[in-house]
Amino acid sequence: MRLIENWFSERYSDNLQLSFRVKDQLMSVKTDYQRIDVFDTYDYGKLLAIDGTVQMCEYDEFVYHEMITLVPLHFTREQPKKALIIGGGDGGVAGQLNKAGVNDITNVEIDSQVVQVCERFFPGLTSIFRKPGVKLLIKDGIKYLRETREKFDIIMVDSTDPEGPAEGLFSKKFYEDARNKLNEGGVFVTQSGSPYYQPKAIKMAFEGLSSVFKHVRPYTAFIPTYPSGFWSFTIAYDSDVDEPETTPFSGKYFNNDILRGCFLLPQFVKDLIGVT
Amino acid sequence: MRLIENWFSERYSDNLQLSFRVKDQLMSVKTDYQRIDVFDTYDYGKLLAIDGTVQMCEYDEFVYHEMITLVPLHFTREQPKKALIIGGGDGGVAGQLNKAGVNDITNVEIDSQVVQVCERFFPGLTSIFRKPGVKLLIKDGIKYLRETREKFDIIMVDSTDPEGPAEGLFSKKFYEDARNKLNEGGVFVTQSGSPYYQPKAIKMAFEGLSSVFKHVRPYTAFIPTYPSGFWSFTIAYDSDVDEPETTPFSGKYFNNDILRGCFLLPQFVKDLIGVT
Repeated sequence: MRLIENWFSERYSDNLQLSFRVKDQLMSVKTDYQRIDVFDTYDYGKLLAIDGTVQMCEYDEFVYHEMITLVPLHFTREQPKKALIIGGGDGGVAGQLNKAGVNDITNVEIDSQVVQVCERFFPGLTSIFRKPGVKLLIKDGIKYLRETREKFDIIMVDSTDPEGPAEGLFSKKFYEDARNKLNEGGVFVTQSGSPYYQPKAIKMAFEGLSSVFKHVRPYTAFIPTYPSGFWSFTIAYDSDVDEPETTPFSGKYFNNDILRGCFLLPQFVKDLIGVT
Repeated sequence: MRLIENWFSERYSDNLQLSFRVKDQLMSVKTDYQRIDVFDTYDYGKLLAIDGTVQMCEYDEFVYHEMITLVPLHFTREQPKKALIIGGGDGGVAGQLNKAGVNDITNVEIDSQVVQVCERFFPGLTSIFRKPGVKLLIKDGIKYLRETREKFDIIMVDSTDPEGPAEGLFSKKFYEDARNKLNEGGVFVTQSGSPYYQPKAIKMAFEGLSSVFKHVRPYTAFIPTYPSGFWSFTIAYDSDVDEPETTPFSGKYFNNDILRGCFLLPQFVKDLIGVT
């Protein structure tokens, strides 16, 4: 990743970019899968970029990690016990799950170097991988899900966008495999991109999941260091679960209001995915 | 505004900037109040910047204009008839009001050149100023509000941020003047900045308005070309109005879901303004 006068720029498109002023580039490595960079930024703390896109930074990682984890936990029929995370090599999702009382966690990350880099620069997040009950596997999550004999109460996809290595994580085949490996009453969740700048991601997730699951519900969060600041996630499940009114969890972003509000979508998003 | 290799960059802070690739700089003028620039961008249409900050672009102006206008219209005791807009020299707010059935509109803009520039480059928005019932005054809105003998059902502040010329629009004195010029059952609304990057704006608006009005309610929207993409507005009113459940208005962003969802705040925003 080339730095111009100590600015790291993420190109959102040919015509838009967000730039962070950095004190230092802490690491840059090309792995078998992707390029990983870590920057020490001025206002956003340490920042992890993969293939030039911000994956996480200390300033606002709480929003993404709380929202991908705490929302789906309300839509399982029973209290979830056993979780599978695909991606998530930084440990952020596993940490939130654990804090929320889910202790049997399998985390399948395809790229060992994501974990190694995060162990070095984000040890507060990766320390979760040393907890009893948390199992880290370096494997292709798509293949793992197809082949495993285990079943889970919650399956979570914490991936990059549906270009490159993560494309298969947005396919109907993958969603079918996920459904087959969910315990009854379980829930699936995936990040599904920015409705403004990556309409393909939420559309692929919504349509693919709708062909497999009975209930499919996109939800949103304000994440300032992601493209457009408007991010989406999508949960899918088969059980008829009552809409929860209150949450036992509290976060810096997540609360009772957000549990309801995050599902309330702007009209252009409804139009994009074809719901009323 | 200096362009580097045909990119217009808005500095959000010393350490973060968003850059738009531009085909051409259409206009740059220093007025008595501020610098006004218009760029023809690649993906975002024509873009109006004031003092280097994006005020509006064709791509997403609908979000800001719908949200500042349509939300408060649900919190007047009677159907509002008479509106005052302070700022709003681009005509976007007046246009939304008119579309929503409010036909007696006074729009007080301090800088005649904002109007002139917008007449030239955004004629679809400024055409509203030629409609019967819509009165455009080139005046200081703070002074106008203090001195006018008219009263309004809705008073709207469509301003820049609380630095420079707009600072007085976030003062308790101004909010008192606004309350005095509201008809009974009327509503006040102001844009109140990004809770992530301009916490001062929403805090000033919330605290100032709370010392004057009985009900003060911040609400939010996803606006990708504004800093962080997370924008806030704040309404204030004295009447006890029932929370509306459905809206007669529809927009590209605004709908029944957003009418409820926009008031549901992330925890860090509640903590910032001190509400539970």
